Amino acid sequence: MLTVPEPDLIRVAGIQLENVVGDLTGNAERILDAMRWAEEREADVVVFPELALTGYPLADLVLREEFVDAALDRVRWLAERSGNTAAVVGTVDRVPPRRSWDTRDRDVAISSAIVCDGQLRGFYHKTLLPNYEVFNEARNFAPGSDPARVWRIGETIAGVVICEDSWSGDGPPEEQAAAGARILLVPNASPFNLEKPAGRQKLVSEVARRNGTPVVYVNLVGGQDELVFDGGSLVVGADGELLYRARQFEAERFVLDVPLGGERPVTVTPKTVHTRPRPGRDPLPAPRPAPQISADEQVWCALVVGTRDFVRKNGGARAVLGLSGGIDAAVTAAVAAEALGAENVIGIAMPAPDSAPAELEDARELARRLGIDFHVIPIADVTAAVERGLGSLLERESAPGAAEALQARTRATLLWAVADRLGHMPLATGNKSELSIGSAALFGDMAGAFAPIKDVPKTLVYRLAELRNARDEVIPPRILDRTPSVQDDVKTTLPDYEVLDPIVQRYLERGQALDELVALGFEPAVVRGVLQLVDDAEFKRRQTPPGVKITTRAFGQDLSMPITNAWRPFHAEEAELVAPDAEPGPPPWSDEPLAAEGA
Amino acid sequence: MLTVPEPDLIRVAGIQLENVVGDLTGNAERILDAMRWAEEREADVVVFPELALTGYPLADLVLREEFVDAALDRVRWLAERSGNTAAVVGTVDRVPPRRSWDTRDRDVAISSAIVCDGQLRGFYHKTLLPNYEVFNEARNFAPGSDPARVWRIGETIAGVVICEDSWSGDGPPEEQAAAGARILLVPNASPFNLEKPAGRQKLVSEVARRNGTPVVYVNLVGGQDELVFDGGSLVVGADGELLYRARQFEAERFVLDVPLGGERPVTVTPKTVHTRPRPGRDPLPAPRPAPQISADEQVWCALVVGTRDFVRKNGGARAVLGLSGGIDAAVTAAVAAEALGAENVIGIAMPAPDSAPAELEDARELARRLGIDFHVIPIADVTAAVERGLGSLLERESAPGAAEALQARTRATLLWAVADRLGHMPLATGNKSELSIGSAALFGDMAGAFAPIKDVPKTLVYRLAELRNARDEVIPPRILDRTPSVQDDVKTTLPDYEVLDPIVQRYLERGQALDELVALGFEPAVVRGVLQLVDDAEFKRRQTPPGVKITTRAFGQDLSMPITNAWRPFHAEEAELVAPDAEPGPPPWSDEPLAAEGA
Repeated sequence: MLTVPEPDLIRVAGIQLENVVGDLTGNAERILDAMRWAEEREADVVVFPELALTGYPLADLVLREEFVDAALDRVRWLAERSGNTAAVVGTVDRVPPRRSWDTRDRDVAISSAIVCDGQLRGFYHKTLLPNYEVFNEARNFAPGSDPARVWRIGETIAGVVICEDSWSGDGPPEEQAAAGARILLVPNASPFNLEKPAGRQKLVSEVARRNGTPVVYVNLVGGQDELVFDGGSLVVGADGELLYRARQFEAERFVLDVPLGGERPVTVTPKTVHTRPRPGRDPLPAPRPAPQISADEQVWCALVVGTRDFVRKNGGARAVLGLSGGIDAAVTAAVAAEALGAENVIGIAMPAPDSAPAELEDARELARRLGIDFHVIPIADVTAAVERGLGSLLERESAPGAAEALQARTRATLLWAVADRLGHMPLATGNKSELSIGSAALFGDMAGAFAPIKDVPKTLVYRLAELRNARDEVIPPRILDRTPSVQDDVKTTLPDYEVLDPIVQRYLERGQALDELVALGFEPAVVRGVLQLVDDAEFKRRQTPPGVKITTRAFGQDLSMPITNAWRPFHAEEAELVAPDAEPGPPPWSDEPLAAEGA
Repeated sequence: MLTVPEPDLIRVAGIQLENVVGDLTGNAERILDAMRWAEEREADVVVFPELALTGYPLADLVLREEFVDAALDRVRWLAERSGNTAAVVGTVDRVPPRRSWDTRDRDVAISSAIVCDGQLRGFYHKTLLPNYEVFNEARNFAPGSDPARVWRIGETIAGVVICEDSWSGDGPPEEQAAAGARILLVPNASPFNLEKPAGRQKLVSEVARRNGTPVVYVNLVGGQDELVFDGGSLVVGADGELLYRARQFEAERFVLDVPLGGERPVTVTPKTVHTRPRPGRDPLPAPRPAPQISADEQVWCALVVGTRDFVRKNGGARAVLGLSGGIDAAVTAAVAAEALGAENVIGIAMPAPDSAPAELEDARELARRLGIDFHVIPIADVTAAVERGLGSLLERESAPGAAEALQARTRATLLWAVADRLGHMPLATGNKSELSIGSAALFGDMAGAFAPIKDVPKTLVYRLAELRNARDEVIPPRILDRTPSVQDDVKTTLPDYEVLDPIVQRYLERGQALDELVALGFEPAVVRGVLQLVDDAEFKRRQTPPGVKITTRAFGQDLSMPITNAWRPFHAEEAELVAPDAEPGPPPWSDEPLAAEGA
């Protein structure tokens, strides 16, 4: 009788960890707790995300020697407490100085420490250092010099690579598989954007198929300043087929038995983690992958997690925001209520004398439905006092938009006064469309300690409102139905957001130029006008609060333009959006109105 | 009779250019004008700064294909207009894609175009790309692949390297000298800090001596956002001795006859610029190097140039700022008056009911002496209106510092209202000491479009006031004599600025840790308390306006820390500055008072 040989299985645990940048003691406790969980489940190896111990990204914190010392101390602390289960712990390590692209030596590497049986068995050092978009790892880190390193974990030869290492097609995964690795363990700190989850799964499958090895891809979860790490860890077989997918936007621990890739010659001397044979144990039932959630749901979760973690990890618990009766404030309030609990959010309506009464009613009704605290502070007294104070200065000239900007700044002043007195974090409610074209007042509409929907285009703000209301109708329909009141103005009229948003997205996120946009069917004059507004608005964007990145290119580090920048290819005569007499135009810090809308 | 052979002289012009980032047309005109100036002086070669045509730094502007296309067009336009004098023009070039440290191809290089006789003769591509402190060139640029390239300019073999290329000790200068170069031409975009000028001259001399070649080091001049390029171009002989130094902080053109380094074998095939013999001409008299100015004078000039260029290059001409009667506002006002002309600056005193009458008098007297416009707007009406508006919210709790922060934000609101109505740029007056320890209100004291003295420690603010007064006494002595009123507070007392500033400087600029500072003689409890304040204040620093970098590490891109960061090694029991009952402490966005002072 023919016996089918039992497949070689390795039991792998993955820890989709929530951590805090710099919290070495707390993160080490979290890691140790998960190591013990994995040992109880008789895992052969447990994989943590990239820089699990230190947090990601570290920016210039890693330049502090005493921080690196403290991280190395904590790695030894974890090693002493390690047991039978090998643990792959993301941290930093000191390496011999390397100089690769400028005149400075770097001597710290992004690393995975491998600990087992009370010992530190060694480090793998990340070889490829992303240095684009939100990443600047080449600034402070040295690349590793041993991309083919593999590890003997009992009977298994395993490879360990880190995040970017996987994506070159001819990098560490390929070298380690060629050196004998039958499984690849991949810690990551991969921040969310709308195109990431699908792209990640495709790449992980390709790495597995190319190398004939299963891949265990473990991602971080939680918000860190502008980034949200969305988890969604993946395990794929050597054929590239999905074996498991963890949930997005939640901490999770998982363990499964993974069939190893085919046996192959071992061509380098592996580092030994341990040499025990695989224990006899019953195989685990295959876990069920988490369902994929829709793109809009992912954005919603990213906003909630990003807002929650920015407030909480900075020592806060509560937030305050202005409720205008518009859709932006409504979505921001709904996000804040879900992130912090309705009881921890205060909404403040700050109507001006010319505000529509329906907007105040809508703001009140929104607060009632969300269950958040609600106050009304009319601003007329304050703006009148300011105008009295300005006195003769007020008479000199009358710039359009100044009165509106004063209202916005008065609201910001009131919001901050409440925040100061109550300890609530003030949230700004501006969206990406406004920020793109500069239709927001510096220290006015965009004033706040955090701006949850800063990277959300207006059309997506509407979809998020509908998504939230599908669960239960917290946003009064009148807010959704109200047409954004585009203000008529001597200088500018704007296209609808349905036209504006795709132009801005293609210009900023895909780098498409005028001619490409026109070839897609957009009106040349409209495109020119919009691109000009986008270029002109960098001045204002620079001082806006951080917000949650959800698109492929968010304003900020991700898309870093000079403030002072005379590159204005779109100032052309056919740009209908700007009248010829508009030159030289208002200074870039001014508050000429472009578009006003109900939020 | 023995004839001493005439030394081989090459006539070199250097153009310490002022340009504007992105202004390809304007910069090309400026370059062409200087090329003609050099031709009139029969220069063999004229050297422009790094990225003279495009401006520096370009940040992500260089990711736009249409920008690179337009720059290449302008290079051809310049080439067509070039004459007998070879010109070394800083610009960008497309190169074959290179991938060196991550998985992305880069295909644009920082370059020097060599143009002559109506032709584009070729490019040198920068080989070393600085990626630290304010530099992130490895983000968007490809390194050059031909560091040994040399150029035949008539009878001379010349090398061209760019900025960072010079500083490795074994880089392009060494390769080019070994390949036969008898002179090194070095375009630069080297931003000012207090330690730069001396360091630069030392390095340039070392490069010359090591390679036995004269070095012509040409630097950019002018402000670009947070950076000020200070010129101070240098020419040194093959023995490392100074032949010429251009002025700092001013545009300048210079031309001189430089003795070439010793003849040597030419080991690579030089690119030919032209093959004409050196023309017969009378030698030029040796020019007199500009005198070196003191460190404090350099800072003063940097503030003036940085403020002037930020306002003017962004399309403005005038500024408005609050005059408190304190030293910070006084120095900022004096800088603004010198940068923009007294007639273009408005000072506004905004006294609160509890402000000292002497401070208002001093503000008025300062404005009179500077010759700037002056207005008084008391803020009591506005703050009373805000407090009335807050109503019951005000009663809930009473956080210390809230009233003071409200005053600061009211002043900011008034300042912006004036700015909006008159088109003046609002300037913030905060200094680096305050920003270090977080004693400033977000959107309050630090509100403005630009913060001239943001990187100036308080002790240096005083020295700058004395420096300015030595010319003519514009700052009333009473402002200088007034002791900063450190506010007594339940939680915190601060050391004098004479102690605070060096601790902060050593911690941030030199990376010194607690034990090193204590070893220098600082009180351990004081050091702990200060470092803790510095670490805690990152939250507020993130949203401050740009300001002029003058130290080796300015807040901002130069010293980029995570906002959310639990690394707090200084929260220890012996930290006397923070009382034990202060935990959990105010949230980081709050305005707990730390120190108040007269500006």
